[in-house]
Amino acid sequence: MQVPSHSSFTAVIIGGNGAGLSAASKIKRLRPSARVLVFEKGPHVSYANCGIPFWLAGDVPQNNLILLSPETLQQKRGIDVFPRHEVIAIDRRAGAVQVRHCETLREFEVAYDRLLIATGARPRLPDWAIAEAENVFTLRDLQSGQALKQALSGSLNRIAVLGGGYLGLEMAMVFRRRGLETVVLEQAARILPGFHEAISTHVQAYLERQGVTVITGLQPGEPRYQGPRLQSVRLSPEGRNIQADGFFMATGIVPNVELAQTAGLQLGSSGAIAVDDTLRTSDPRIFAAGDCIEVRHRMTGEPVWLPFGPAANKQGRIAGANMAGERQRYAGALGTSAVTIGELEVARTGLTLPEAQRRFNPVEHVFVQSQDIAGYMPGEKQATVVLIFRKRDGRLLGAEMAGFHGIGKRIDVLATALQAGLDVRQLAELDLSYTPTIAPVWDPILIAANAAVKKLSV
Amino acid sequence: MQVPSHSSFTAVIIGGNGAGLSAASKIKRLRPSARVLVFEKGPHVSYANCGIPFWLAGDVPQNNLILLSPETLQQKRGIDVFPRHEVIAIDRRAGAVQVRHCETLREFEVAYDRLLIATGARPRLPDWAIAEAENVFTLRDLQSGQALKQALSGSLNRIAVLGGGYLGLEMAMVFRRRGLETVVLEQAARILPGFHEAISTHVQAYLERQGVTVITGLQPGEPRYQGPRLQSVRLSPEGRNIQADGFFMATGIVPNVELAQTAGLQLGSSGAIAVDDTLRTSDPRIFAAGDCIEVRHRMTGEPVWLPFGPAANKQGRIAGANMAGERQRYAGALGTSAVTIGELEVARTGLTLPEAQRRFNPVEHVFVQSQDIAGYMPGEKQATVVLIFRKRDGRLLGAEMAGFHGIGKRIDVLATALQAGLDVRQLAELDLSYTPTIAPVWDPILIAANAAVKKLSV
Repeated sequence: MQVPSHSSFTAVIIGGNGAGLSAASKIKRLRPSARVLVFEKGPHVSYANCGIPFWLAGDVPQNNLILLSPETLQQKRGIDVFPRHEVIAIDRRAGAVQVRHCETLREFEVAYDRLLIATGARPRLPDWAIAEAENVFTLRDLQSGQALKQALSGSLNRIAVLGGGYLGLEMAMVFRRRGLETVVLEQAARILPGFHEAISTHVQAYLERQGVTVITGLQPGEPRYQGPRLQSVRLSPEGRNIQADGFFMATGIVPNVELAQTAGLQLGSSGAIAVDDTLRTSDPRIFAAGDCIEVRHRMTGEPVWLPFGPAANKQGRIAGANMAGERQRYAGALGTSAVTIGELEVARTGLTLPEAQRRFNPVEHVFVQSQDIAGYMPGEKQATVVLIFRKRDGRLLGAEMAGFHGIGKRIDVLATALQAGLDVRQLAELDLSYTPTIAPVWDPILIAANAAVKKLSV
Repeated sequence: MQVPSHSSFTAVIIGGNGAGLSAASKIKRLRPSARVLVFEKGPHVSYANCGIPFWLAGDVPQNNLILLSPETLQQKRGIDVFPRHEVIAIDRRAGAVQVRHCETLREFEVAYDRLLIATGARPRLPDWAIAEAENVFTLRDLQSGQALKQALSGSLNRIAVLGGGYLGLEMAMVFRRRGLETVVLEQAARILPGFHEAISTHVQAYLERQGVTVITGLQPGEPRYQGPRLQSVRLSPEGRNIQADGFFMATGIVPNVELAQTAGLQLGSSGAIAVDDTLRTSDPRIFAAGDCIEVRHRMTGEPVWLPFGPAANKQGRIAGANMAGERQRYAGALGTSAVTIGELEVARTGLTLPEAQRRFNPVEHVFVQSQDIAGYMPGEKQATVVLIFRKRDGRLLGAEMAGFHGIGKRIDVLATALQAGLDVRQLAELDLSYTPTIAPVWDPILIAANAAVKKLSV
């Protein structure tokens, strides 16, 4: 399909954060004469949503979280940004979107040559939760962050965090550092249920040392409200009531696909928007990028939903290039991710053990605990490393880590090994850097790889 | 060659640190009945020599640097360790070494079935320097560290560091932190002359901000002594005299090969002991490992001398396995290394730009400066990244970095990419971890890789 080359080429972008603005910037760089219009439902664009926990913790001033204002985006990049403007419908036949101003409710239509859907994701609450309750909090954008910030400056003394995943645990330590009595409720048998048990154990022990209460294996429900406030939830089957001043819901997110779905665009098996490897949807003039799409997993080729920031930014850039007439491919993702829980870093890449077993059986795994920097250095702590590999040939399939020094960048070593298709014998031969402040002579990766090689030769 | 299997199998090891003790431990693990004798010329064995700067800085107590005492090595591992025992000759025909006790000067002979030479390296001083001068210091072992420690508790006010490589710069910041007026003299045009200029500039700017004076491009010589003390050196051709209370010589190291050479063992083109990939010397009963040997560079296949700790430990383990009758191969090294200079991490892997040009011309390179963690986080600083790659196909050939967060483990990502033979397009597709405390959304590696891809397509 030929991209119109006249100067009135218009790209419309739905969503004014990572993916959307990366695409917008790329389009303007490649086609300076293009009109690029970005519609964002919320009041803010271009903010660092991963930075919100650090703002709530008091580490970062709010102003720092706004990366680029609409004015700067217009003046420096020639992008027209419309906050508080919701795209309520896509008329694919006409090649136009229906936009509504969120305050005046005025509606208007904008024609596009190319459209990008970058609508992101939103928190998923349990059925019994009333999102509007004044002491029920979520965290996804600056607005939800502001509500929490206000509550934290008020009379919040005890908070229950529902969900023991990345966000729940990250925020549990933020609450703890703010002096709150903090209890984490995870209905699975352990926190971080997607990780190997050794990682969950490491993290739970750390949280408990920091004074966070962790309750697992019980399902919260049967809320008791008093007026607009949630007072307690009941844990089943045990029956205990958990009372708190505030309830932080970190019970997962769902992709915002309704607009695409109503427009008749194809969704994938994960429920997120289906795209090809140029990030084009089932409509050739419409692209999608970021937390609302599913992508190909690099290990399995299967479609998966992996809503992480770097991927969203990379996808936005590629989608923008393709909207501008280039042909770039998105290589897919490994699901590499990391979180900092207080001072503890947790990270993973590739397949989990159950995913690997489903696809590459028979599968082996090892977990080791070892020093994260030289043993004689102050601040030396234990790192936990999990390697998951194919039994037949030792090919690495996944890796997980928890520790205090260099965990995120160590997982990147293993993400690189995964992309290159290395096996654990090759891992054991890696020539890794060493100096006492950053690693022991035998890096935890090498210790784990040696353990894996031993297991292979049994 | 058949390894004798009777219980009187004797392995003799010359050198009681990383390589030697790794080998000794491996032999005892594989052949518990073997006699393993370790002769060490110095008074200490099994100490963390890379930790000495941190002891001198006051970060680490001296006791922590001793990893295993001779008693522990005997009791826990069954290894017989003899400190202050110098091996003065190898009688290859008889299969025996001549040993001299360094205090009593008593000499005796010990027969071996297998011998390991792990004699390490020693500082190389300029011709004009008198090592015995009481205010001329080196740093290689605990003894030289003790001399420095004593001087630092005395009346040292101003120190000149000769040599702007890893050790010189690491120690310059130790001296600075101890409150000394510190001047670094590097006779090459810039400090870290083996690195790309962008790295040298980054590091020099940091040192100067910390109050270290850096003088480059002038050759120190014409020492002036007063009694046993060096008072000044003269910089030529400029003629300026540099006076100091102490002179720290970080002017390089040389492998300890004299014993091997006298015994008629083959040396390599680098001047270090030549070994095959099982770490066997030109005598089939004699192995060598650690800083005294040359190894195969994984990028070029050429023999190189890369005296770094992790390689020495790995080589020791492999040599030990082979001495015990296994057949393990050492895969060679990439020259991955790192140093911490004050709070600044510097690291490299693979070929330098001149090495790459000599071997893989035409060669391209890029250097970028970018945030090392999310830009809004406290403590965010600039990282410098250099990528060196082949013009024809973008294959990565080498990488260098300087920065304050995660540099050492980021270089490991590139060491992994080098081992796997990735090109810069593949680097740009890496799925790396992200969370604001450990990386920006676009990791410096990806920013550099994107710049490299752009350069390729020009």
